[in-house]
Amino acid sequence: MKKVASGFLPVIAVDRRAAQPLHKQIYSALRGAIQKRNLSAGEKIPSSRELAIDLRVSRIPVLNAYAQLLAEGFIESRKGVGTFVCTELPGEQLSRPPSTGREIRVPHGPRPLSSNPIPPPFVARPWIFGQGAFAIGQVALEHFPFPTWSRLMARHFRQLQAKFLNFSDPMGSLEFRRALANYLRTSRAVNCEAEQIMIVSGSQQALEVTGRVLFDSRSQVWIEDPSYRLARNALTGTGCEIVPVPVDAEGLDVAAGIKAARRARGAIVTPSHQFPLGAVMTAARRLQLLEWAEHAGAWIIEDDYDSEYRYGAMPISSLQGLDRGRRVIYIGTFSKTLFPAIRVGYIVIPPDLVDRFLAVRHSADLFPPMLYQDVLRRFIEDGHYARHIRRTRQVYQERRNVLVQALKTEFDDSLPVIGSDAGLHLVVTIPRQLSDQEIALRAVESKLWLYPLSAHYLGKRRAQGFVLGYGSAGLPEIRAGVRRLHQLLRKTRRSH
Amino acid sequence: MKKVASGFLPVIAVDRRAAQPLHKQIYSALRGAIQKRNLSAGEKIPSSRELAIDLRVSRIPVLNAYAQLLAEGFIESRKGVGTFVCTELPGEQLSRPPSTGREIRVPHGPRPLSSNPIPPPFVARPWIFGQGAFAIGQVALEHFPFPTWSRLMARHFRQLQAKFLNFSDPMGSLEFRRALANYLRTSRAVNCEAEQIMIVSGSQQALEVTGRVLFDSRSQVWIEDPSYRLARNALTGTGCEIVPVPVDAEGLDVAAGIKAARRARGAIVTPSHQFPLGAVMTAARRLQLLEWAEHAGAWIIEDDYDSEYRYGAMPISSLQGLDRGRRVIYIGTFSKTLFPAIRVGYIVIPPDLVDRFLAVRHSADLFPPMLYQDVLRRFIEDGHYARHIRRTRQVYQERRNVLVQALKTEFDDSLPVIGSDAGLHLVVTIPRQLSDQEIALRAVESKLWLYPLSAHYLGKRRAQGFVLGYGSAGLPEIRAGVRRLHQLLRKTRRSH
Repeated sequence: MKKVASGFLPVIAVDRRAAQPLHKQIYSALRGAIQKRNLSAGEKIPSSRELAIDLRVSRIPVLNAYAQLLAEGFIESRKGVGTFVCTELPGEQLSRPPSTGREIRVPHGPRPLSSNPIPPPFVARPWIFGQGAFAIGQVALEHFPFPTWSRLMARHFRQLQAKFLNFSDPMGSLEFRRALANYLRTSRAVNCEAEQIMIVSGSQQALEVTGRVLFDSRSQVWIEDPSYRLARNALTGTGCEIVPVPVDAEGLDVAAGIKAARRARGAIVTPSHQFPLGAVMTAARRLQLLEWAEHAGAWIIEDDYDSEYRYGAMPISSLQGLDRGRRVIYIGTFSKTLFPAIRVGYIVIPPDLVDRFLAVRHSADLFPPMLYQDVLRRFIEDGHYARHIRRTRQVYQERRNVLVQALKTEFDDSLPVIGSDAGLHLVVTIPRQLSDQEIALRAVESKLWLYPLSAHYLGKRRAQGFVLGYGSAGLPEIRAGVRRLHQLLRKTRRSH
Repeated sequence: MKKVASGFLPVIAVDRRAAQPLHKQIYSALRGAIQKRNLSAGEKIPSSRELAIDLRVSRIPVLNAYAQLLAEGFIESRKGVGTFVCTELPGEQLSRPPSTGREIRVPHGPRPLSSNPIPPPFVARPWIFGQGAFAIGQVALEHFPFPTWSRLMARHFRQLQAKFLNFSDPMGSLEFRRALANYLRTSRAVNCEAEQIMIVSGSQQALEVTGRVLFDSRSQVWIEDPSYRLARNALTGTGCEIVPVPVDAEGLDVAAGIKAARRARGAIVTPSHQFPLGAVMTAARRLQLLEWAEHAGAWIIEDDYDSEYRYGAMPISSLQGLDRGRRVIYIGTFSKTLFPAIRVGYIVIPPDLVDRFLAVRHSADLFPPMLYQDVLRRFIEDGHYARHIRRTRQVYQERRNVLVQALKTEFDDSLPVIGSDAGLHLVVTIPRQLSDQEIALRAVESKLWLYPLSAHYLGKRRAQGFVLGYGSAGLPEIRAGVRRLHQLLRKTRRSH
């Protein structure tokens, strides 16, 4: 039997002054609740004692009502366990069929909705929730130090303080933000103090809050093309105009952006590892972008989503660290270094805008949960975070090397690989006459996850290809995945 | 010494082809990072071995650079522990004073912000974060079954599955929503299936998402006056017009609302326990409100924030359960029954609007964290939740009784008490010539938390008084708090 919530008191109102005796009232109310399925089949109902206390009546009428329901087959009693709604109810007793939850009934009056811009519908493409070769956004969970994590979690509960359970600072825990500021200054050359950091539920909330503070319907905002699809969605509420700006091997093509919209109000960029094409923005481009922003009075939103993982290339300081005009908003997340469900991200805000960001955040979501903030602080301070990044960097580097080598061997260099210097994914391009989306759908049948490159484009100049994630795929799986990809492409070409 | 994050690799770029020898380059980069405070005083730096691996150089130049920094007093070595940035740096070596994080420097170019409506600034009034007598929004943490909770948490970690760590359904865990649907059908007579329930971070996010789906700048929205201040803030982004509607002992004054704005697009109500005045909306008013909504084509947002706690009064079904036109959005939270930092709330959405709500939610915050969802599901299914509510209902009822009695005794019936039939707070009113805000500020000095009633009003007809929370105050503290309140009011009257 499916497990159901149990022991809840149903909504029953009794009236001592009514003509109907109390046991009849209680009987009718319970019977009605069962018929309307407010009490589910198999659900445990309160004991007669509990119900009597709740209704402030003596136990006698409750016992009488229960006896009648028992006799009629609505409830059943299990010795020593309790009383339950029967799983098989008397014939035709249910007054309505179980609703599917999504059926459409004709509403009575008008039901008008907001005319403000609404983001595009969420579509659960099959490759979004995949794991292994070559799902993107996935990490090597098997290398996560769970024993350490559990120990810190247990310590949190042992030393539980009221402050961890109550309302707290809407910016996030100050102790955690101090540890984070230290990490960002050291590892990413971000110029920041704890007071400038806001803890949010991830990059998405970071982008949404930032957009609401900075942009409105008269704003043009540069977005890399191709780019992270959801970044645009985060800006929908602002009503701003999205301007797609092409990227090349040096990152965002600043000159093209200036040509398209010189007076834009902002730009969202992924300079450490362009998503999805993987370029690391060159120092020259960084300076060019900052210079443009200074002249245009524009904001730069630096989404540093996976900069912890770079291979071979020399580290380049964050854009934020180069900025002297306080016009860079720096966004980061723990989804890629720890695991996606942790839902902890952060914004480094120019000091004079902290209050504005705070007002917007507080109105939409009072404050972040404390548990992971406290555990993460210890994880960082005790050196586990640095160690974990160092370890997984080696893991991912090896996976990347094997993937690049397998692609070379299997495809005999006929499948161009780009953007493999950093991050947890790379991109392969396929001939334009093939459809990456069709192939990706076919690949799903054999549990091969190929995120189509063309889906990331805003403008028309779409390349065809796949974004291949290697974060959650072991070496044999990577090799097997490449072979399957080869078979799939061969079949597709033949049918062309 | 303050603990700082440790072991992170600083951003250092070395160039083998440069004229400057490698050890000089490494020395300069580290010295620069320390001077710019990107490496903090007392911070552990990577071992020479780790840094050499990271920079892809031999260990010799790193050792040379470390030796020079050691000699110059920038770093210090502790046997068997590691190498650290000196806590006392050589005189005048720091290139800039520590920033306060909020100072204003003159920016270079213009830095224009959004002209869209922005919520009022967040102000941390002293009584917001108080605990004990008579902080509001606080719960009896000492009665929370932590051993059970920790056990379920430990079980979650023992049985950890990849699906708990990865991206998951943006509506929330289906298993958890099933348990919740069952609870809501039974205990609140909410007409719902799991598929209609969206898990959010609390009532605030629930209100914000709902507002964005339903309202725009042409919408008028009824808000109870007085009401929960933050409900208005949640709607700021929609641009809607707030229409304050008075409340009386029967709840929202529907006739007054119709008079003020017959064609309003929606109403936000707290029918189970009006916030802050505490009325339980009568059945007649509920039907009147639903009827108006049907004719006007309006939405009703039912914020059922603390309905689990009612004393004496007979339970009344939720508005949502009475609605036949699918125009009630039902909002609930675990902040009041468990603890505020849990950050789990939910929206029961009319089935045909689920996709619309989902698009808005997903654009702002991909999906809710899994840990508490999984633990809460077990907590509900195993009957702990029902037991906890039953137990705390008795605790709060006793606290309420003691508070009401103490107010009667101490003030000799001169301080009117309202709204004590449900919830975790009640209201006392004071003569209009006194200022509740001034008294509340004075009370803070003796750690007595009095949330001023007048602060909850939108319109001008403000009553003076206090919202007294008893959720986190034990019986002796309640009695002492009432005595202090009496002294305070006596002093204030005398000075008048």
